[in-house]
Amino acid sequence: MPTSETIAAPGTGNVSTNETMKALVYGGPGKRAWQAMPRPLVRDPGDAVVRITTSTICGTDLHIMKGDVPTVTAGRILGHEGIGVIEAVGPLVSTFRKGDRVLISCVSACGICDLCRKGMYSHCRTGGWILGNTIDGTQAEYVRTPHADTSLYHLPADADEEALVMLSDILPTAFECGVLNGKVQPGDTVAIVGAGPIGLAALLTAQFYSPAAILMIDVDDNRLRVAAELGATTLINSADGSAVQRVLALTGAAGVDVAIEAVGIPATFDICQSILAAGGRLANIGVHGAPVQLHLEKLWDRNIAITTRLVDTAAIPMLLKLVRSGKLQPSKLITHRFALGDIMKAYDTFANAAKERALKVILTNPVNT
Amino acid sequence: MPTSETIAAPGTGNVSTNETMKALVYGGPGKRAWQAMPRPLVRDPGDAVVRITTSTICGTDLHIMKGDVPTVTAGRILGHEGIGVIEAVGPLVSTFRKGDRVLISCVSACGICDLCRKGMYSHCRTGGWILGNTIDGTQAEYVRTPHADTSLYHLPADADEEALVMLSDILPTAFECGVLNGKVQPGDTVAIVGAGPIGLAALLTAQFYSPAAILMIDVDDNRLRVAAELGATTLINSADGSAVQRVLALTGAAGVDVAIEAVGIPATFDICQSILAAGGRLANIGVHGAPVQLHLEKLWDRNIAITTRLVDTAAIPMLLKLVRSGKLQPSKLITHRFALGDIMKAYDTFANAAKERALKVILTNPVNT
Amino acid sequence: MPTSETIAAPGTGNVSTNETMKALVYGGPGKRAWQAMPRPLVRDPGDAVVRITTSTICGTDLHIMKGDVPTVTAGRILGHEGIGVIEAVGPLVSTFRKGDRVLISCVSACGICDLCRKGMYSHCRTGGWILGNTIDGTQAEYVRTPHADTSLYHLPADADEEALVMLSDILPTAFECGVLNGKVQPGDTVAIVGAGPIGLAALLTAQFYSPAAILMIDVDDNRLRVAAELGATTLINSADGSAVQRVLALTGAAGVDVAIEAVGIPATFDICQSILAAGGRLANIGVHGAPVQLHLEKLWDRNIAITTRLVDTAAIPMLLKLVRSGKLQPSKLITHRFALGDIMKAYDTFANAAKERALKVILTNPVNT
Amino acid sequence: MPTSETIAAPGTGNVSTNETMKALVYGGPGKRAWQAMPRPLVRDPGDAVVRITTSTICGTDLHIMKGDVPTVTAGRILGHEGIGVIEAVGPLVSTFRKGDRVLISCVSACGICDLCRKGMYSHCRTGGWILGNTIDGTQAEYVRTPHADTSLYHLPADADEEALVMLSDILPTAFECGVLNGKVQPGDTVAIVGAGPIGLAALLTAQFYSPAAILMIDVDDNRLRVAAELGATTLINSADGSAVQRVLALTGAAGVDVAIEAVGIPATFDICQSILAAGGRLANIGVHGAPVQLHLEKLWDRNIAITTRLVDTAAIPMLLKLVRSGKLQPSKLITHRFALGDIMKAYDTFANAAKERALKVILTNPVNT
Repeated sequence: MPTSETIAAPGTGNVSTNETMKALVYGGPGKRAWQAMPRPLVRDPGDAVVRITTSTICGTDLHIMKGDVPTVTAGRILGHEGIGVIEAVGPLVSTFRKGDRVLISCVSACGICDLCRKGMYSHCRTGGWILGNTIDGTQAEYVRTPHADTSLYHLPADADEEALVMLSDILPTAFECGVLNGKVQPGDTVAIVGAGPIGLAALLTAQFYSPAAILMIDVDDNRLRVAAELGATTLINSADGSAVQRVLALTGAAGVDVAIEAVGIPATFDICQSILAAGGRLANIGVHGAPVQLHLEKLWDRNIAITTRLVDTAAIPMLLKLVRSGKLQPSKLITHRFALGDIMKAYDTFANAAKERALKVILTNPVNT
Repeated sequence: MPTSETIAAPGTGNVSTNETMKALVYGGPGKRAWQAMPRPLVRDPGDAVVRITTSTICGTDLHIMKGDVPTVTAGRILGHEGIGVIEAVGPLVSTFRKGDRVLISCVSACGICDLCRKGMYSHCRTGGWILGNTIDGTQAEYVRTPHADTSLYHLPADADEEALVMLSDILPTAFECGVLNGKVQPGDTVAIVGAGPIGLAALLTAQFYSPAAILMIDVDDNRLRVAAELGATTLINSADGSAVQRVLALTGAAGVDVAIEAVGIPATFDICQSILAAGGRLANIGVHGAPVQLHLEKLWDRNIAITTRLVDTAAIPMLLKLVRSGKLQPSKLITHRFALGDIMKAYDTFANAAKERALKVILTNPVNT
Repeated sequence: MPTSETIAAPGTGNVSTNETMKALVYGGPGKRAWQAMPRPLVRDPGDAVVRITTSTICGTDLHIMKGDVPTVTAGRILGHEGIGVIEAVGPLVSTFRKGDRVLISCVSACGICDLCRKGMYSHCRTGGWILGNTIDGTQAEYVRTPHADTSLYHLPADADEEALVMLSDILPTAFECGVLNGKVQPGDTVAIVGAGPIGLAALLTAQFYSPAAILMIDVDDNRLRVAAELGATTLINSADGSAVQRVLALTGAAGVDVAIEAVGIPATFDICQSILAAGGRLANIGVHGAPVQLHLEKLWDRNIAITTRLVDTAAIPMLLKLVRSGKLQPSKLITHRFALGDIMKAYDTFANAAKERALKVILTNPVNT
Repeated sequence: MPTSETIAAPGTGNVSTNETMKALVYGGPGKRAWQAMPRPLVRDPGDAVVRITTSTICGTDLHIMKGDVPTVTAGRILGHEGIGVIEAVGPLVSTFRKGDRVLISCVSACGICDLCRKGMYSHCRTGGWILGNTIDGTQAEYVRTPHADTSLYHLPADADEEALVMLSDILPTAFECGVLNGKVQPGDTVAIVGAGPIGLAALLTAQFYSPAAILMIDVDDNRLRVAAELGATTLINSADGSAVQRVLALTGAAGVDVAIEAVGIPATFDICQSILAAGGRLANIGVHGAPVQLHLEKLWDRNIAITTRLVDTAAIPMLLKLVRSGKLQPSKLITHRFALGDIMKAYDTFANAAKERALKVILTNPVNT
């Protein structure tokens, strides 16, 4: 169970002064605490240190809390999403300076290695998803962000931080892994399996391409209701095991052009592979912990594509434009707000998402407090 | 075991006169005969009847003989590859006439339905792979070909039929399902698992895009030797189970850009999914009879794509140009030649491919004999 | 000036009985008449004869009336857009029968030739844009449509014909030549030069891809007002010659991602080439009668693409889905309605578009009249 | 006329010690000298200083010598191609160190700005083509290269420098602007207008995609002979003005799939636009100094694309792999070799290319001399 006992400081981590800050520290499966930690300093010349003003909690953080992510060890500060103000930069940082307001990408990218040059920032040879994973993260008053020039984004001073913090991870993830990989086209029939925050973010961003129908599949009627408000055209509660039959019935047995997997378990992947039309695309977003059975004996001749992707956040500049123009309204995903100092309570709420009707929870730590 | 007893005529099949012809008839698992059959006539207005001059045997025909393809019933004339001369056409046929020399696509396509208009001829609503499957096929003196206007291709009178009959199925299959789906690019590292005819055809056509390295993986050293002659840069005999380790060693642990599955069993699919680089493409060509385990717990964050496809033969016009220009030499795949009348023996040879060192076997039935 | 004197029957045209119908006949530059003509019959086996229930007039028809389209000769029935009911079909037609309600594509495509197989129906070797051009067209009570199977589209009996007749030409033209060729992407800045019906159709269909901004450029304030209602985010009246400067000012000197030319004269093409961002796409829709100066001395290093296209109408199935789902509302382009019998007056109105504030005019000829 | 008088040192340029080096200095139209210049030092923290071991002369350098490139001012050291050994690096450089052997890209790219992140390095907001243009270049014993991490490429110590120096500019230019923009596909018919070094480099790299035919068009029979050796399938001497007719005759009036403009004058652009097939791509590589007439009155309905591009050199890693694997042999473009100290003579030879039968000239400055 989550606790608030103090957790021993990590062996690896931040160069620090004697100054401290408060941070959410992982203490091994089921254990976390909001506690004093050394305040980070610039360590590598490409680093920035950012004072966090807005953060949030990701479904992945819950996976970490269950012990599902072995790269995260006890003592780690969690969090890979955030907005803040630059406190300090290393000598290699050329495009940011103290006082700049920035969006922090959940992916740190050097911009130099072969994989970064291909736009595959998630597999950067010295970066990738490291924040709140192999280095300390953003659920803290301060965070050190490596490769700042290619991992932070300028925001205007009057930015709507609640909305924009959704661009750290959840919106680029849903868009890149689900919508872009799924090649959603105008007129398509799209099914999204999983109406949690990530599935709903896929729902929002799939609409950039004007599909004719978006079928939302989940076991939670409340989440399906939210999906209807956010643009789903058909709601399917899959609790009774009839989702596949119903999708096939709705599509005249043809199946869907695009199936987006937004859960990460064999059962939901199975729905996706069973409802794909000939020529269809199955875009996996979910984080899987176990293998799945792929029915190649049925699919070998169906002209389908199955894709996976760790978000590259290459779409952040495009998403920023779409928020600015009003075409994308990320705050629709926000259900709860807490002060950063109440993050222990925020975790409790987010972990009981169904009961609390929680989607994304906002954590604020305004500069003037 | 294959037999040459006469097999009862099929319940469905061709409208025919009293004239007969010889044909290779499937008699249920393990049974086939070269026997007299009614000679086909035009039945539907879009049909052509073609006198076969060159044909061949496909790996799929061996699957049929094992009883693996339930749509093929006893009494069916096999074969979906062939070249011949038009004997008669129905009233809807506008671009072919009696006496024209034609290449027969293994896929019959109406050209009108929604899926044909998308170029997905393999899923034509009134066609697809039907020859030698749900209607009588090309291993016969005559064949009825539906949707002739959009399923046959004009050949010059002096065409090299041995070479061009490879364009009925094996070359477009390897190219479309393996090379195009695998998005082979100049400089890529490509692995092809399976050095049978289809894998070797992938090897030939992958070279259209100038990959830097092509690793050929098989258990048969003779086939690997052939692969070396046809352009493979590295040969890996996977009999000892070390193929994955060796590919990873050869690529500095990075894996391959493209893995082409050209066998159709879980073990070979497994090699493919284990050697993919981040951002890699796994293009499945093999006909699978069983599900496979897909290791999404390892692959969910690897930015990969897995594709399947039943050949559409949309690439036949391109391949014809490449043969004509000398860039593609399909006869490199031919190891044995028989008269069509010796097809029973040809099947024996082809079925013992390893021992006979057989790749593609040519069946000829010249007009002047 | 247009007249209503009877125009001599054309030398080429329709096989016909003695039955007559009324049709709009071109009589050479400036001359047209609504007059009795022989009623068309099936001539070629792939033909359908359609009783027109809804038609419209295209900007191209006005060009024809000015004598700008030399392939159209006196005696020709004009019109290449229409919806109707099948009256008769030839023996090759397999997917339509008498009584079917159909949308007529402005492009007739055989579906068989090499160019049709590439989806370039506009360049079909025995079709293309021929209706109301080299064969009699749709501004008549009846029309003969060649290649019916691949040039007509089924409509439900309760179809909204006014809306759907926009899918014969104007919407696929704007979408394929402007939006698809321009590769409009979410977040893009798009400029459309020309707010006539075709430019407004580009405006409607560009929104399928959620650009951040759409700048509409025209000399007519009324049309710009309509553009604002249809989704333009910025209106620029180019009458004062400052359009280029204003676009550059609005885009921080960067220029636009996509410029869509929807007029067809050197001055509007010139605006387009002057406002393109590095990496931008200039998609030409306009029918040009004269060469333009292309400023390669400025553009050679700007990483741009310029495209042209005669509409292929390959997008009609997609557009039908989008109308059905409510994502596309073509009736927004309709300003005037006439009975087909009043087509002479409809031409007058359409030819005085600015004064009449006319966009698309609907011509109706209901079955029950 | 070129001279070897000493040219006054430039107002802007390199921070330097008192040490000098020899360099080729532009002195205004027609004037150049190989003279002593201050040896460059690291100025900005992302700089490297490279001791040049191999360089070459580009057609663009000849344009500069004619005064055609106004951004180049008297006193500038020319040259934007080269290989060398790192002498010093600034504090921001993280992937190179003193002693590393490197290929210098002709384009300097920060890797951080919005345009670099789109892969459009040529339009980098603080880089682009600046070497030998707005800052001192590579035809010198030493050069300062900005944005070293994203503008230099590691080479092995035993690299074939003659071959690889072709990857600084000419090969990526021909490949990216000509072959990639032209979307050369297997089986295509490609015409290249201009058989100078850049056209021949397009010829070499077009073959990565196995076109069926490559027509080479030039006025110089010697260059056409070279083209035949490098893979051209048809040679057309356009001196008699019949090139367009001959291409149309050779293609059955259809025209070519891809026309690559590799000269940069209206006459050659005109050939390209006159020989394009419906659906064809015109890829401009040439540096144009004047506008061209674009015949939109003929092309508006031809479904064509015209592209321009300043080389991004994004293809250098791919080209390095292709050289290493033997698929690309850049030394075929080399005709003359000089010591760097004889560069004045090398310019004379290169400027009289037709008479000297010169293509690329190599300038060497080995470390051990």
